[in-house]
Amino acid sequence: MTEAKLVINENPNKKTKPDPDNLKFGKLFTDHMFTMEYSREKGWFQPQIVPYAPVSLEPASMIFHYGQSVFEGLKAYRDENNDVLLFRPDENLKRLNRSNGRLSIPPINEELVMDYLKQLISLEKDWIPQAEGTSLYIRPFIIATEPSLSVAPSNNYTFFIILSPVGSYYPEGIHPVSIMVEEHFTRAVRGGMGTAKTGGNYSAGYNAQEYAANQGHAQVMWLDGVEKKYIEEVGSMNVFFKIDGQVITPELNDSILQGVTRKSIIQLLADWDIQVIERKISMKEVYQAYEAGTLEEAFGAGTAAVVSPIGELIWKDESMIINGRQTGELTKSLYTTLTGIQTGKIPDPFEWTVQVK
Amino acid sequence: MTEAKLVINENPNKKTKPDPDNLKFGKLFTDHMFTMEYSREKGWFQPQIVPYAPVSLEPASMIFHYGQSVFEGLKAYRDENNDVLLFRPDENLKRLNRSNGRLSIPPINEELVMDYLKQLISLEKDWIPQAEGTSLYIRPFIIATEPSLSVAPSNNYTFFIILSPVGSYYPEGIHPVSIMVEEHFTRAVRGGMGTAKTGGNYSAGYNAQEYAANQGHAQVMWLDGVEKKYIEEVGSMNVFFKIDGQVITPELNDSILQGVTRKSIIQLLADWDIQVIERKISMKEVYQAYEAGTLEEAFGAGTAAVVSPIGELIWKDESMIINGRQTGELTKSLYTTLTGIQTGKIPDPFEWTVQVK
Ligand SMILES: Cc1ncc(COP(=O)(O)O)c(C=O)c1O
Ligand SMILES: Cc1ncc(COP(=O)(O)O)c(C=O)c1O
Repeated sequence: MTEAKLVINENPNKKTKPDPDNLKFGKLFTDHMFTMEYSREKGWFQPQIVPYAPVSLEPASMIFHYGQSVFEGLKAYRDENNDVLLFRPDENLKRLNRSNGRLSIPPINEELVMDYLKQLISLEKDWIPQAEGTSLYIRPFIIATEPSLSVAPSNNYTFFIILSPVGSYYPEGIHPVSIMVEEHFTRAVRGGMGTAKTGGNYSAGYNAQEYAANQGHAQVMWLDGVEKKYIEEVGSMNVFFKIDGQVITPELNDSILQGVTRKSIIQLLADWDIQVIERKISMKEVYQAYEAGTLEEAFGAGTAAVVSPIGELIWKDESMIINGRQTGELTKSLYTTLTGIQTGKIPDPFEWTVQVK
Repeated sequence: MTEAKLVINENPNKKTKPDPDNLKFGKLFTDHMFTMEYSREKGWFQPQIVPYAPVSLEPASMIFHYGQSVFEGLKAYRDENNDVLLFRPDENLKRLNRSNGRLSIPPINEELVMDYLKQLISLEKDWIPQAEGTSLYIRPFIIATEPSLSVAPSNNYTFFIILSPVGSYYPEGIHPVSIMVEEHFTRAVRGGMGTAKTGGNYSAGYNAQEYAANQGHAQVMWLDGVEKKYIEEVGSMNVFFKIDGQVITPELNDSILQGVTRKSIIQLLADWDIQVIERKISMKEVYQAYEAGTLEEAFGAGTAAVVSPIGELIWKDESMIINGRQTGELTKSLYTTLTGIQTGKIPDPFEWTVQVK
């Protein structure tokens, strides 16, 4: 590691801030970004904050050919005292390094990057929207930049952090969606890249996603790649079920992404004396619970939506309506508590939030 | 499709051609490249040949985040009359469109692109090296360019064709390599992206490839993702076995890439009255053949190497030496015939080669 001191090159041409009531997701970026380079000789070097601007890359750069890239996603909130809060950013940097390992990308120094991230957020503080449900979305990512067509890990990388003010995931309030269980396409399999946040896992799902959207469903539910029996994730979220009073979530394996929201929900429920059972759960079991009238709630969990209630589940020719298409009590409590902690509205007994000075 | 006429913007600063005896693979590019844009409103538009130069992209461009990209690889040769030959380029463009379909990328017009490709090759004719085993490697690829962090197909794409003069795959003559059967990692699975030439499939293999290289092996042999029993590919090649006089290759499924070399070998062998059996073949079966002394030859097949003999196969704790680490007779004949046809040294009864005027 030869990281030098962070150089800040301030943008003289500041953009006007967007209308906080009309924010979309990830279309608009702030005035600055963080970048850092990697070479085999120097390690990670040249950390800097520079104006957000296009990057220039040779067409032969490996990122365009062999998909060697990883990313993260987390959010910054502004609380009522105008202080800036990050939600468990250490977890995201840890996961970034796990993703790096799976993609043969050299690890970053988590402590240093945490410091760079805080300096970037601090500089862009005014970009953090304050309206209910809005936040500043933080996207760290690493791409392979060596110009070479060899099918092998790149010798050069660039690490970026870009920031986007985003609107509420639920402009009309939290509401359940319809989810289609995907029987044909596979997101990830044992021995694959499913535990890594890497590009290929996402575009792999587009065919299925487009098909589901055409059928009028919001997202797909992914089954395991081996037996096409066990539930893995929903869209780009982890998934929870409440069946006959018990909360169940698929146990982690090497094809499920280890969500920070998932982990936080498990801890939060433990605090409420509700045990979450982490185990394999098949679609058949969910269907049987539905038939028995014990499928009480189901929801996705991830940074973007925080908690996303499932109102309908389509499996083969069956449609299962969950909790009369209403957001369940537990789902609602989790959403309120998590967003409350994230935005500093309620106390944070877990010390999950990190204040940016 | 609103493609206009191809615009050619000639490079005034021509590079000096490299030493043909010291060519590497995919490190050096010619003076020009082809590019074409896509938007939802216009379809594919603005086909042009321009100087090979860096591209400028917003850091939010989807290619950097969600892996939506496809590519192809084929070669141009110069024959003894100084004519330029392409090997089955129609097959590559067909496959590019199949890859596009899997990645939710809009299809290209194969006929038009074939014409553009020929014009590019014709302009760069002097870049095609002529020494034994050398060629001009052609890399068409498409990347998602819309600046957006939505997990959804991009609304904009750029299609590139870049060209790289490449050295012989076998500077010291064709020779067998050692291959490790991969038991843990998975390249692709049923319902995944294995039949598409898309970035994620390649970086997915880096961990396994690095491990094999550290153990002194040239590449890994991929097993199916479901049972980890059946042979799929070797490195980035299809694979053939000669067992007890019979030629066997894994039958195509939705996790094996449909190689042009594989297809050509099957046709060539049929012409020689040797039937290729396309069926599932397990590692256990290969090992039993080895023990019985009937594992006669094994080789990989792909554009880069054409044919790559396997001299040793490592499976769990077993090492199988194939044909005394010598290139087998059939492997050698296939290599000589295929490269002979590709370079115009021997007649092409199949009309595989396409001359560029
Ligand atoms: C595939 C996938 N699963 C689950 C999640 C949820 O993870 P987190 O709660 O850390 O956002 C994400 C990321 O948002 C994801 O991309
Ligand atoms: C994964 C994979 N398998 C097989 C092949 C062989 O295909 P082809 O003979 O068309 O080069 C390739 C490409 O070269 C490949 O990338």
